[in-house]
Amino acid sequence: MNDFIELAKCRQTCREFAARAVEHEKLVACVEAARLAPSGCNAQPWSFVVVESSAMVAKVAECVAMDGMNSYAAQAKAFVVILEEHAKLMPYIAVMLDSQYFAKGDLGAAAAYFCLEAESRGLGTCQFGIFNRPRLGELLGIPEHQPYAALIGIGYPANPEVRDKQRKPLDQLVRFV
Amino acid sequence: MNDFIELAKCRQTCREFAARAVEHEKLVACVEAARLAPSGCNAQPWSFVVVESSAMVAKVAECVAMDGMNSYAAQAKAFVVILEEHAKLMPYIAVMLDSQYFAKGDLGAAAAYFCLEAESRGLGTCQFGIFNRPRLGELLGIPEHQPYAALIGIGYPANPEVRDKQRKPLDQLVRFV
Repeated sequence: MNDFIELAKCRQTCREFAARAVEHEKLVACVEAARLAPSGCNAQPWSFVVVESSAMVAKVAECVAMDGMNSYAAQAKAFVVILEEHAKLMPYIAVMLDSQYFAKGDLGAAAAYFCLEAESRGLGTCQFGIFNRPRLGELLGIPEHQPYAALIGIGYPANPEVRDKQRKPLDQLVRFV
Repeated sequence: MNDFIELAKCRQTCREFAARAVEHEKLVACVEAARLAPSGCNAQPWSFVVVESSAMVAKVAECVAMDGMNSYAAQAKAFVVILEEHAKLMPYIAVMLDSQYFAKGDLGAAAAYFCLEAESRGLGTCQFGIFNRPRLGELLGIPEHQPYAALIGIGYPANPEVRDKQRKPLDQLVRFV
């Protein structure tokens, strides 16, 4: 596989989902990919709640679309919540660092893998940064103090057009020594 | 591109690098891929220092291989340091959240993209979590208080064999609702 960058270019935030339902097998495949992400000490400090029943999808969408924000969440056909779990580090590292020292970066990688696998299977994804946490936690039985890493809406894109990416120019970001 | 999961299975920590040098163009491509990663409010809170001159590579390796740890860093033919930069969030989000609220996850995604692009071009990578920060900072002119997101060694793998991944079983990680 030598065209990863082409996949990276196609992966984009999807804000318009088609009516087509998302197959259970595809959601499993996305989690399968996510758990292959690297993590500090291979601690794998993650767990996943995949929301796919229409009744629950509608309730999660209500936790996301609020005050006029994220209204397109109502079109998503599934959601995944990625949660931060305790990271068991190797003993000689655990004595130096907090158990969760690498976790947020590891979870960013896992969420990226999830969305890349979704893209490679024709699905669109949208990460929501703002949502009603107490209500979502109650709905899904997530303990009050457990940190959320990502909430991602999933569905088939209504519009398959790939937009140009808005990114800072490379020469502002990198130096070579 | 529909085989992302195959790429994810092949990407593995490389601890044995071949003598072959890494082409400048491939390192540029890895940074190009990394900057396509998604980020909260598209803030792109990252910058990259790519170390490729043999003299500097040797000096960085000395900052990584210490006290008998990470001895294979001396074989790496290049390194990249990924740094956390200030994230400019959208105004209505910035009033609620610290500017760096999403940054660590975003940087985890960028590092993952870097390593996936490297893998897709036949390169091996190894993320180092422990290294001599004051010495590396001085060497590369990194401000004392700037957070490091990743330090990655890069080279052609001496052994192309793909190892089985050690991961927690899927059913321990996920529930479907």
